[in-house]
Amino acid sequence: MERLFIIKIGGQIIDDEIKLSSFLKNFSSVNGKKILVHGGGKLATRLAEKLEIKQTLMDGRRITDGETLKIVTMVYAGYINKNIVAQLQGHRVNAIGLTGADGNAILAHKRQHPAIDYGFAGDIDAINTEFISDLLEKNMTIVLAPVTHDRKGQLLNTNADTIAQEVAKGLSGNYEVTLIYSFEKSGVLLDADDDRTVIKEINPDSYQQLKSEQKIFAGMIPKLDNAFAALNSGVKKVIIGKAESLNQLIEGTTGTTIIIH
Amino acid sequence: MERLFIIKIGGQIIDDEIKLSSFLKNFSSVNGKKILVHGGGKLATRLAEKLEIKQTLMDGRRITDGETLKIVTMVYAGYINKNIVAQLQGHRVNAIGLTGADGNAILAHKRQHPAIDYGFAGDIDAINTEFISDLLEKNMTIVLAPVTHDRKGQLLNTNADTIAQEVAKGLSGNYEVTLIYSFEKSGVLLDADDDRTVIKEINPDSYQQLKSEQKIFAGMIPKLDNAFAALNSGVKKVIIGKAESLNQLIEGTTGTTIIIH
Repeated sequence: MERLFIIKIGGQIIDDEIKLSSFLKNFSSVNGKKILVHGGGKLATRLAEKLEIKQTLMDGRRITDGETLKIVTMVYAGYINKNIVAQLQGHRVNAIGLTGADGNAILAHKRQHPAIDYGFAGDIDAINTEFISDLLEKNMTIVLAPVTHDRKGQLLNTNADTIAQEVAKGLSGNYEVTLIYSFEKSGVLLDADDDRTVIKEINPDSYQQLKSEQKIFAGMIPKLDNAFAALNSGVKKVIIGKAESLNQLIEGTTGTTIIIH
Repeated sequence: MERLFIIKIGGQIIDDEIKLSSFLKNFSSVNGKKILVHGGGKLATRLAEKLEIKQTLMDGRRITDGETLKIVTMVYAGYINKNIVAQLQGHRVNAIGLTGADGNAILAHKRQHPAIDYGFAGDIDAINTEFISDLLEKNMTIVLAPVTHDRKGQLLNTNADTIAQEVAKGLSGNYEVTLIYSFEKSGVLLDADDDRTVIKEINPDSYQQLKSEQKIFAGMIPKLDNAFAALNSGVKKVIIGKAESLNQLIEGTTGTTIIIH
């Protein structure tokens, strides 16, 4: 099977024009098929502040009321997505920006929770692997915004990490998928404040041990749980590391590699 | 050749949620291949006002400085485009929303003018007919936002009427194209204030006469010039009329039909 890189970039890169532009240059030089999944970050929060729309976060997730969904759609699917696509086109990468609504790429439903109303937050039901594979086979590079839909006319705000994971799982039947979570740190760290304490490799046994010894920063646990879930669903490799070192992450010479055997 | 409908909707429909939703329901019932081109209108102006970004219009075209381009990208390519796509998906139309940057669909350059700096306004150089036709052949319905790019990383604000016309011309080699400009009036009117004075048909001779007798509202002249240019470049039929009457416009039982022979 052909290799496919699915690369998630976090908010801190997106908020920094120079870092983003340098990342996109590196990303353009990655050979072969690739999908970029971006979050949103502070741009949406800043716009909401300017428009005096109150934002509520619950466990790190934005409560998406109607006005917030408008902002999310404008900033994530509009401003960020299209600027990334235009920059990649400038590097002669034939990029196409999509939300989950486009081509019914990612079908979701409004999150149901017994106690909390998350508003227009979407949990993923299905990935349209045929549509996505068709575009990849035309040598297009897909740029995914963290917005999905319910196929009843409603857009939904959806966590970008989860989109990356679900798309990786969905496409692992067609491609040998490497899923890369790139962010501001050099990988999974033993000491969250010391970038030199990167754990090179984590497998299910060492993960249990690290957790029981409380050596892993709590914020990393959902990412690692997602990583193992992806590997158990056919994804070949998950790598976590610094966005600035994308090319070395891909080569496996830096960052944390998560494996199941 | 198979028929293709390219339908432009104006700002007044987009600004009215109920009218837009009713239009999209009608649009969904149109059989066969179709492309929807939308403008932006007052939503962008209102957002600019809220954010206290001064807007300048010159001959009805927005002067697009950097901050205005951000707004245009957020509102046109984000909010409006993705809401239309989600609604069409709700009607089981497999829609995909694109700017000119996506898949390099519409290549443009920054407008050069000896006296006026239009800012990030784009004039179209090329339509990627292969990419667009590929999507249409997969029975996808394309929703085009009035944003293009220069393939050097820059997004550009581009007039939606012009996009509709250029895409119609570009695709007329592959399809029998009907181009429909739908807006708030019932067609080209003899009396701009009386919706019952629709001119049923305009050909080059009658157009010259109407112009010389000053019977045509000045605002319609660029639309009609565009219409004749499109017909002279292979577009089969151009129809101008009320968005609410989309199905009758398509049947040719209402609105103004522009023909060259």
